[in-house]
Amino acid sequence: MKGNIVVGQSGGPTAVINSSVAGVFCAAKELGVNKVYGMVHGIEGFLEDQMIDLGDYLDDPTGVELLKRTPSAFLGSCRFKMPQIEGHEDVYEKVFEIMEKHDIECLFYAGGNDSMDTVKMLSDYAAAHNKPQRFMGVPKTIDNDLPITDHCPGYGSAAKYIAASIKEIIRDNASFGAKKPTVCIVEIMGRHAGWLTAAAALAKGDDCEGCDAIYLPETVFDIDAFMEKVKYLAANRSSVVIAVSEGVHLADGRFVCELANENVAVDAFGHKQLSGTAAYLAQLVAAQTGLKTRAIEFSTLQRAATHLASLTDVNEAYEVGYEAVMTAEEGKTGMMITLDRKESTPYLCATSAFDIHAIANVERSVPKEWITEDGCGLNEEYEKYARPLIMGELTPLYVNGLPRHLVRK
Amino acid sequence: MKGNIVVGQSGGPTAVINSSVAGVFCAAKELGVNKVYGMVHGIEGFLEDQMIDLGDYLDDPTGVELLKRTPSAFLGSCRFKMPQIEGHEDVYEKVFEIMEKHDIECLFYAGGNDSMDTVKMLSDYAAAHNKPQRFMGVPKTIDNDLPITDHCPGYGSAAKYIAASIKEIIRDNASFGAKKPTVCIVEIMGRHAGWLTAAAALAKGDDCEGCDAIYLPETVFDIDAFMEKVKYLAANRSSVVIAVSEGVHLADGRFVCELANENVAVDAFGHKQLSGTAAYLAQLVAAQTGLKTRAIEFSTLQRAATHLASLTDVNEAYEVGYEAVMTAEEGKTGMMITLDRKESTPYLCATSAFDIHAIANVERSVPKEWITEDGCGLNEEYEKYARPLIMGELTPLYVNGLPRHLVRK
Repeated sequence: MKGNIVVGQSGGPTAVINSSVAGVFCAAKELGVNKVYGMVHGIEGFLEDQMIDLGDYLDDPTGVELLKRTPSAFLGSCRFKMPQIEGHEDVYEKVFEIMEKHDIECLFYAGGNDSMDTVKMLSDYAAAHNKPQRFMGVPKTIDNDLPITDHCPGYGSAAKYIAASIKEIIRDNASFGAKKPTVCIVEIMGRHAGWLTAAAALAKGDDCEGCDAIYLPETVFDIDAFMEKVKYLAANRSSVVIAVSEGVHLADGRFVCELANENVAVDAFGHKQLSGTAAYLAQLVAAQTGLKTRAIEFSTLQRAATHLASLTDVNEAYEVGYEAVMTAEEGKTGMMITLDRKESTPYLCATSAFDIHAIANVERSVPKEWITEDGCGLNEEYEKYARPLIMGELTPLYVNGLPRHLVRK
Repeated sequence: MKGNIVVGQSGGPTAVINSSVAGVFCAAKELGVNKVYGMVHGIEGFLEDQMIDLGDYLDDPTGVELLKRTPSAFLGSCRFKMPQIEGHEDVYEKVFEIMEKHDIECLFYAGGNDSMDTVKMLSDYAAAHNKPQRFMGVPKTIDNDLPITDHCPGYGSAAKYIAASIKEIIRDNASFGAKKPTVCIVEIMGRHAGWLTAAAALAKGDDCEGCDAIYLPETVFDIDAFMEKVKYLAANRSSVVIAVSEGVHLADGRFVCELANENVAVDAFGHKQLSGTAAYLAQLVAAQTGLKTRAIEFSTLQRAATHLASLTDVNEAYEVGYEAVMTAEEGKTGMMITLDRKESTPYLCATSAFDIHAIANVERSVPKEWITEDGCGLNEEYEKYARPLIMGELTPLYVNGLPRHLVRK
């Protein structure tokens, strides 16, 4: 590559999205790219020409190692939706103008479904207007709901955090319960896809009894059936821990959390900000059974807990960033790097590049065949899929007793 | 010691209460004690003669190492309050009967204020009735509110978890905010004492802007002043993260969380189960400012996250268990082991034994002099006190990608 490049981060952060930036940077430097810019707050900041020179932070290799250990989006993220091209050509022209101004040959964008839509729109615009600039998508989402790719960087670390935390919660909950069980309900992210909630199933093992029930948004949530299940569990166990997706919904489509709060906030993409499902269900259980209940929401910790990142995930996040640059170097554009699993045992995964049009705006759910018949659990097919993704650790660099992060000046 | 001993765990678990059991076990074995029993679910289970032989788990030293890495109360905990002696002599006689039956010379009880009351009552009863059995308290509480001792085992690990998680939350929250800040309110445990919430102050450093405000229960919470503060912060920062104690209360004594839910549940000791403070305040901020808000409760994770335990804390928890046995060996009874700080820089701490009567049922708050004048932060005196307590890590033993725990069969 002769010119410079720019990389941006978009959407909800993950524990390893910075590893993808590290991968982009290191590949570009290997290719002799002069400057690797970083968009401050994604395409939204880029449109205002807000960038940093990543070399200021990463030319020293300890910077790269620190970046890998830094949670959230080092460059800043955004939830900016590119407008339809027709009638908004000025926005698109602005992107190309800024790219030309800084001699930027290729733009790399790390994100999920919505962000891949940005890559698609920009590469479509370039194709339609004979622009030479190239656009590559770098997959990232804790939600694991991008199609084509076997899984998404960010998922493995979120799954590891969820499974490890559920194990700790189960031990805590089980410590009481000499006489009556405490019913603990844990709420996990995932608006439409249950991948994150499914990770609660990984807690089960020789040293852990596992969750007593797991509710994904892939199945309809029936409150009466749920209450029956809880009453049965409470009568038969000394501790009850249940995982529910924030996205569990009734047959009529309403989210359970909307029963508690009708005025759910909505973001720029029209997505509802879901929260309070566990609290609502815990109150219901307490009222109907008189048992002690507890509601826990992992909230942003499940996407920010880099101190517990999966090394497999860190490495794959780096790889997709690295391969995006290498693929662009071949002259390609309008593609996203995918992770292609070759084998589960032993785990073996390669990368390739795929047309962004097949990816943007498509959501992939947990296969119905992986959900147990009663709709309250995952079978061994899921474990076979997910277990390799949480393997390995990247030890944080501790300074003054806390994990050290890299931050923008 | 000629006879056997028994150890129990009581009250809310901590990340390191099992290290205290390890300390008791190892000291007893060093002294040639025959059997070290563990009460299953504290004194409540003990009264029903429910015990395990700890040797079954810990004779192999890998068991001790695994126990140190196991969250919550390995033996099971309870919230059982010993009744007043008068009129309930049968309950007390039952304790001694079970001790005699198993040739138990000394009882060790790891817990907080309420549990130290149990030690006091039992040792008082023994003294009044010329019983030879001895009773020793082993300090444990994430709340850090026991008097006399410089700090309590369990606090350092909870503080480390809180500070590390707040750092991750601050990075997450700061990743958006190109245009308008998100106001994130984090709720931290601590009914009357603000020690845990104060730990949010440790997040601040070279690589972290720290919390924008920290509200302890040691000061009266004024909702109008809080809203003013939030509006000021929101107008001047691109990210706002605020830590509040679950125990923040109004001038009239009502907990803030009671404003959201009047029917707060109460436990066996008459303590209200506090929750929902952050959610209530976040809704208030959203309604009054229109800003995006987020409420996070650490809930039980702050006391169960052994994967992020402080090594200093692990070692001190072990030490107080160990010293309790050594002190009992000298013939002493009715005492609790305290941690006596000799120096903060470099950190140096010893142990001694103190009369349980001065400790039971007394709660120690964060000194007013350590709270900043505006009531929304901690000064460097607190950091000098707390920083040494979060130092060091104990690497979990990872199996299949998750920290391994020791569990009762």
